[in-house]
Amino acid sequence: MNGSKHSFIRMKHDYAALKVKQDRLMDAIHNGCKFGASHRYGDDPTETGMARMSLDDSDKQIRDWFKSSVESIGCVHSVDQMGNQFALRPGKNKQAYPVMMGSHLDTQPTGGRYDGILGVNAGLEALRVLHEHDVETEGTIGLVNWTNEEGARFPMMAVASGVWAEAVPLETAWNLSEVSVSNDGTKKTMKQELERIGYLGQQKASYKEFPFAAYFELHIEQGPILEMEQRKIGVVEGVQAFKWFEITVRGRDTHAGTTPMYARMDSMLCAAKLIVEANKIAKGYDGLATTGILNMQPGSINTMAHTVTFTLDIRHKIDEKLSQIEKECRSRFQEIAANESEKGCSLEWKELVDSPAVKFHEDCIAAVRDSAIEVCEDLPKSASDGQLWKLMISGAGHDACYTNRRCPTSMIFTVTKDGISHNPREYCSPEDCELGAQTLLGAVLRYDKLRAE
Amino acid sequence: MNGSKHSFIRMKHDYAALKVKQDRLMDAIHNGCKFGASHRYGDDPTETGMARMSLDDSDKQIRDWFKSSVESIGCVHSVDQMGNQFALRPGKNKQAYPVMMGSHLDTQPTGGRYDGILGVNAGLEALRVLHEHDVETEGTIGLVNWTNEEGARFPMMAVASGVWAEAVPLETAWNLSEVSVSNDGTKKTMKQELERIGYLGQQKASYKEFPFAAYFELHIEQGPILEMEQRKIGVVEGVQAFKWFEITVRGRDTHAGTTPMYARMDSMLCAAKLIVEANKIAKGYDGLATTGILNMQPGSINTMAHTVTFTLDIRHKIDEKLSQIEKECRSRFQEIAANESEKGCSLEWKELVDSPAVKFHEDCIAAVRDSAIEVCEDLPKSASDGQLWKLMISGAGHDACYTNRRCPTSMIFTVTKDGISHNPREYCSPEDCELGAQTLLGAVLRYDKLRAE
Ligand SMILES: NC(=O)NCCC(=O)O
Ligand SMILES: NC(=O)NCCC(=O)O
Repeated sequence: MNGSKHSFIRMKHDYAALKVKQDRLMDAIHNGCKFGASHRYGDDPTETGMARMSLDDSDKQIRDWFKSSVESIGCVHSVDQMGNQFALRPGKNKQAYPVMMGSHLDTQPTGGRYDGILGVNAGLEALRVLHEHDVETEGTIGLVNWTNEEGARFPMMAVASGVWAEAVPLETAWNLSEVSVSNDGTKKTMKQELERIGYLGQQKASYKEFPFAAYFELHIEQGPILEMEQRKIGVVEGVQAFKWFEITVRGRDTHAGTTPMYARMDSMLCAAKLIVEANKIAKGYDGLATTGILNMQPGSINTMAHTVTFTLDIRHKIDEKLSQIEKECRSRFQEIAANESEKGCSLEWKELVDSPAVKFHEDCIAAVRDSAIEVCEDLPKSASDGQLWKLMISGAGHDACYTNRRCPTSMIFTVTKDGISHNPREYCSPEDCELGAQTLLGAVLRYDKLRAE
Repeated sequence: MNGSKHSFIRMKHDYAALKVKQDRLMDAIHNGCKFGASHRYGDDPTETGMARMSLDDSDKQIRDWFKSSVESIGCVHSVDQMGNQFALRPGKNKQAYPVMMGSHLDTQPTGGRYDGILGVNAGLEALRVLHEHDVETEGTIGLVNWTNEEGARFPMMAVASGVWAEAVPLETAWNLSEVSVSNDGTKKTMKQELERIGYLGQQKASYKEFPFAAYFELHIEQGPILEMEQRKIGVVEGVQAFKWFEITVRGRDTHAGTTPMYARMDSMLCAAKLIVEANKIAKGYDGLATTGILNMQPGSINTMAHTVTFTLDIRHKIDEKLSQIEKECRSRFQEIAANESEKGCSLEWKELVDSPAVKFHEDCIAAVRDSAIEVCEDLPKSASDGQLWKLMISGAGHDACYTNRRCPTSMIFTVTKDGISHNPREYCSPEDCELGAQTLLGAVLRYDKLRAE
């Protein structure tokens, strides 16, 4: 950040009284956002995880709550064709595009209470602070709740901010079908579910229809670094590259007791070898590989599977290294399927997500950094070098990756206990939630001031 | 068979006219047994496979057909507590236990038209021949349709003959729940489904209540040996040993993008390593290993699975070798889970089936052999050594394994195209079906005569 053209902007003289309220923030997170609570692990009301799958009934409830919450503090609420919810609080200059905060309210099937939820609620808390102090900002300040960020139900992460950024075609997104069958035995599409819960908006889902001046997203780190280094705030400069694939292995379903090993086309055995290999390859590049879904057909103890389908999530900080991991997987997989699987299996690759490495905008990074410095100023200096904020790269993708294509963007990370996320026990302390929300408010006000200059 | 105490018994002088009818047999197999036809692969009406899962609606239909078919030729039909269907055709001596034929009418989810089906229909054809020639046998001759032989829906193969043999407790069998959820989202037990389709009989399921004098089962080989050696009939001396396990791997569900490799408890990666290892171990002993079912939770692309459950089917001709395979798997699995899976996973083994190697009864083997010799006598000598029948060991388990514990038992195998079974394209030619049925009839009549001596 030494090269930033903006000097450190102190806000205290302007907005000394603008402090987020920890109690109100935590009440919004735990009581406001209770719909879809699941996977209890302790006695305290907050000791559960979440299973609020995008566009399910609990997601409808949380959306209704979001709408009434922002409207109760005078914001204008609107919904676009992807179900993205926008709340706007007008400032002095009515012409200027809004400076937006945002994140997502959908969760993983065994998700936690903070991933996405903290970011939306911190934005709501920031708007509440502006409202109760009757602050007139330079331009409009807003908040967005993006649909299906997780990609856990409809298998394309951040698909709705992707449509807004015109990086994903609307029809592709609408036609995504869910990964598991619903209770009625069918697989629903995003469009069907948007309609069903009443969140298929009229507003075109596009940055051209609804442009942002800038976008700031607060999120839990979801990894172990801040905690390990005893720091408080991550100033996020960018996001590592990742790709998602669905790989289909086809063999032949024959009898487990009468088919000699040499006569087999065992697609499960082949898939197992591929999964082991992908991990070895990724590790060799200091990257990541994960298989989170695997389905096999027909599914009978004494019959080999004729078809196995599994997902592969590979990641690396550097685009070129990720390409190398992919290339090596493709060639080794082919060898294993053809030559190391007895009579051989065939392979099919389908790319689900391609998210190149992202570098956020230096103005936004500077606004976050300056706000973090101020927020950390009076805290005990826990880190070994005394610095409580840290410039870092995100391991996870976020809607901010897509907004960054269309407007200056940056992110703020908070400490995540044991680095555990996508798990019911995911945890960020009330103090850390507050620090994050305060940093977000400071960054937005700095950026709002900057653009008026 | 050199040690058999019974000399070759020629039947021709007694029953010269007793010939099974190929047309009627094939009509029963393809039209009588059409319920549950599925997985079409060609235009001919017979070019489909089957998906008649035990105790489903199509299984009810085939049971009704079985009952009316045997009653229409004067047999007495009864059903026991496991839904096993028995048909009896009385002979001269009303006191003698019946000599039974039998097999099963349930199929794999992607099953063929012959596995089990041929055996029951050949028995029915044999009864029809006796009926139309008004033959008075020495004692009662009967036919049984065993429930859930495949173990494909309720994961214990031959469970219903197991209860009859008092090798499996009735309650254990009744409480077995199906491997996949039904359309209504619940998993049904065997007892619930027996009740639902009206086949929860009153008759005690026990060899004590319903003893057999002997049991003969005709079955397709399901493997490639007879075809490769251009022989026609397998005289089955025994069955290889096998065991089924359900193995649960527990790790931790964390984020695929933010959890460094070294911090992972990736249960899917661990399971993949175990599957690869089990196959390596089994191959080393010249045995078999197969994983036909694998489920993982929670099932999200960018979240590691916290739990993976998979089945392991291991087989060997020799009990001691099978024990060694199991022992080596248990110890290597433990090492892999604890030391070769980053932060480690935990393992749980559940034994589902333990089927030791089986040696059939020499009197029954002799009856089958003598019948096979007679049936093959006038055929062109295709095999290199001119012998069209072969003493062999079954790779698959059968209800005959359980009957063998309680009465003299043997089996007859027919040629299976390309050795493929548990697959819609499973095939046994009409000529081979006829040869098998004729051998079955001859074996039963020999045994019936033998017992009267
Ligand atoms: N933050 C987050 O969990 N996003 C989901 C996309 C990803 O897997 O990186
Ligand atoms: N014959 C047959 O497919 N039986 C099922 C039991 C086994 O897997 O061996």
